Amino acid sequence: MGEVKHILLAKFKDGISEEKIDDLIKGYANLVNKIESMKSFLWGKDVSIENLHQGFTHVFESSFETTEGIATYISHPAHAEFANEFLAHLDKVIVIDYKPTAVHP
Amino acid sequence: MGEVKHILLAKFKDGISEEKIDDLIKGYANLVNKIESMKSFLWGKDVSIENLHQGFTHVFESSFETTEGIATYISHPAHAEFANEFLAHLDKVIVIDYKPTAVHP
Repeated sequence: MGEVKHILLAKFKDGISEEKIDDLIKGYANLVNKIESMKSFLWGKDVSIENLHQGFTHVFESSFETTEGIATYISHPAHAEFANEFLAHLDKVIVIDYKPTAVHP
Repeated sequence: MGEVKHILLAKFKDGISEEKIDDLIKGYANLVNKIESMKSFLWGKDVSIENLHQGFTHVFESSFETTEGIATYISHPAHAEFANEFLAHLDKVIVIDYKPTAVHP
């Protein structure tokens, strides 16, 4: 079985409370329970020291078994409802999907 | 043991050959053999369908046990040599580190 990772980088708008951010993260995580093709969810705050993070403050990683599973997720009503709320609180967002490949040089 | 993920999003400059990109990816992967604190390396091309990838074409994920391990990696001569070569071929780059947290809603 393959794996496709769905990475979202977020910068929340100024003035949004930590409580609201926590609520949004819980809402994101809860999509695992609502959308069958979404297999896992991880998140974390930026702890980088190189100053190449371009202002992004949070990383979200979810995983799927296929790119079709991501398409199903995107078009799912639970995702649409969450995304409307979530994106309204973001200043910047990048979403990129990839099939992780290991290299053994 | 904790884990810290080091995520790099890249957009290669126009006109760089696929062979050169392959070489650069192998060079990146080979840092695992040169820098003890770097525990794993994965990469993949963008396969996203939402058009929120902002032109980024490749994702690289490496992992470390601590943020200090990332600092050691960044200051390592093998990293400095590779980064000089790699960054010269990039049009855009974002680097962000995070400690992945699972949420069980």
